[in-house]
Amino acid sequence: MKVGILGGGQLARMLALAGYPLGLQFVVLDPSADACATQVADLIQADYDDQTALQQLSEQVDVVTFEFENVPAQSLQYLQDNCPVFPPPIALQTAQDRLNEKNMFLRLEIPVPEFVAIETRQQLEQATLQIGLPAVLKTRSMGYDGKGQMVLRTKDDLNEAWEQLGGRPLIIESMVAFNREVSIIAARNRSGEIVYYPLSENTHHQGILHYAQSLPNDELQHLAQDYVQRILNELDYVGVLALELFDVNGQLLANEIAPRVHNSGHWSIEGAEVSQFENHLRAILDWPLGSTQTVGYAAMVNFIGAMPTKTTILNNAIVHLHDYHKAPRPGRKIGHATVRSETQSQLSTALNSLISDAKIVKE
Amino acid sequence: MKVGILGGGQLARMLALAGYPLGLQFVVLDPSADACATQVADLIQADYDDQTALQQLSEQVDVVTFEFENVPAQSLQYLQDNCPVFPPPIALQTAQDRLNEKNMFLRLEIPVPEFVAIETRQQLEQATLQIGLPAVLKTRSMGYDGKGQMVLRTKDDLNEAWEQLGGRPLIIESMVAFNREVSIIAARNRSGEIVYYPLSENTHHQGILHYAQSLPNDELQHLAQDYVQRILNELDYVGVLALELFDVNGQLLANEIAPRVHNSGHWSIEGAEVSQFENHLRAILDWPLGSTQTVGYAAMVNFIGAMPTKTTILNNAIVHLHDYHKAPRPGRKIGHATVRSETQSQLSTALNSLISDAKIVKE
Repeated sequence: MKVGILGGGQLARMLALAGYPLGLQFVVLDPSADACATQVADLIQADYDDQTALQQLSEQVDVVTFEFENVPAQSLQYLQDNCPVFPPPIALQTAQDRLNEKNMFLRLEIPVPEFVAIETRQQLEQATLQIGLPAVLKTRSMGYDGKGQMVLRTKDDLNEAWEQLGGRPLIIESMVAFNREVSIIAARNRSGEIVYYPLSENTHHQGILHYAQSLPNDELQHLAQDYVQRILNELDYVGVLALELFDVNGQLLANEIAPRVHNSGHWSIEGAEVSQFENHLRAILDWPLGSTQTVGYAAMVNFIGAMPTKTTILNNAIVHLHDYHKAPRPGRKIGHATVRSETQSQLSTALNSLISDAKIVKE
Repeated sequence: MKVGILGGGQLARMLALAGYPLGLQFVVLDPSADACATQVADLIQADYDDQTALQQLSEQVDVVTFEFENVPAQSLQYLQDNCPVFPPPIALQTAQDRLNEKNMFLRLEIPVPEFVAIETRQQLEQATLQIGLPAVLKTRSMGYDGKGQMVLRTKDDLNEAWEQLGGRPLIIESMVAFNREVSIIAARNRSGEIVYYPLSENTHHQGILHYAQSLPNDELQHLAQDYVQRILNELDYVGVLALELFDVNGQLLANEIAPRVHNSGHWSIEGAEVSQFENHLRAILDWPLGSTQTVGYAAMVNFIGAMPTKTTILNNAIVHLHDYHKAPRPGRKIGHATVRSETQSQLSTALNSLISDAKIVKE
């Protein structure tokens, strides 16, 4: 069986590496000839809206999936006439517009930070009076890794924010004083079977995920599962979905969804019985889902813009390297490393050492 | 960095899958265009003694290794003039001749079953008188998976055995009434660092490995480590090496070595912190070796000649499938599955169920 993936980055690469042991083959569609998944998958080099290329892809494969959110939803709809496409296009469309996404959360009675949709400078002024400051102004679409958003701390920040982001559909959200950021990753297969990974606690550095760790037996696990289950069922979802949440004194507020495998679940390769990548494939092929049980404690550190030497990373015998084989550029995720241990204390020591080795080179 | 592998079967395939996360690339040399590693590695299609192809391989890569023992030792020596080759050719030569291998065991004071080298029918008669029956008559070279060997139970078996195997250099070994067959897998890097996996208990079906399980904390671990360490140092070995042993009432007798990653270590992908495949690559690249600690209990079942359906295998959420994507043929290993668990009892239940699902189709 052959799986088609829109996008040939590290998520596609890790999907393929998880899929070969299952006897699968892969073809990715990506505009770039040196997309890092092409080392382990065939490539159709084309733009995401190239109908000839999409046609060619659909003829080769048993199912199509995607690895990032900025694929045109029309491309998925076009593909759907020829072959199964999972996750469903409606999930992508929802995630592509922060307003749709927030309205879905409200509809499903999942708490969210206060927000207001913004089209004009005047609405921005009014909204800051309504929800107060600090707040975060975001473009409704095309944002990732902290791009397309600005924090407003005082009234003085409004001018610059409007200059940077104005003219596009925007949303302003109350900036929540959270205790921690967590995410829950779940997989639902075509038959409706659902599995949930344990919560991940995520630490960002200027809007980009820096490190994440598994939280076996967290007290908010059940609440997070309840919320993500509502979303999976609402969207008749198939595949892996991540829900990012703020923990505010034990109350969970939804931030956003990602209708795909997610950076905060990379620790599942070593730290869960079956990884998010394998379960995404099983889900879209309608195979039974694998166990999401944690295997000890695990944490993952991103390499952003630069990579420590291999020997530095591998000197600790419980560290697992994932080098995406991408050219280093400031702000670019080019690899990660996971530490896994039977004890939280050994994990913490190894994690701190990894964090200090992983110098971030930002844009 | 690029690694060349002589042989493009499942061992090369699993080496490549373990190596991509380390940022490595792979090229395999194999006579067959559809060797199963070619899905995840470049292919040079040629015979193993094709000097032009060997030259071409050595020019592309940083290091060459091999995945099976029947590569001509001269090919390794030829390659060695152009690039590093690990494990060292002397290890291959030793493993390729059962008499050399046995003499090495004796030299290193590692106990072995009684044996006699055989060239003539008369020597065979004499040897059976000397070491008694039952015994096993084996070709000194080119044997694997029970091929090139016959069990002699009574004098009547001598004629047929001689007819089948006579005319080639042979060895006869006393057939040991063992309690169990075990193996130890170790890795030694170019700097001389050594790590040892826990013992594996191996169950064969008509000479071909059927299933294997990890033995955390076995009482014979230290003795086995001592033996394999002698071999690693004797051969100035680099890479993963497997030593197969008979446990006879707590005494270990050496059976044979395999100078490569080994079927009895496949459970290490899920059942050890770092797999034998990754540690082989780290060893030949002189990177620090990874932890060989067991992660719970693990066992692996081979799929020989036939594969159960994917849903049958994956129905148990703690089962991990490894489909080599090979055409099924009687007697051919086409995949395996590993079960891993925190408890021995859950493992045993899952293992028994896997064994009953995995119908063997022998030649």
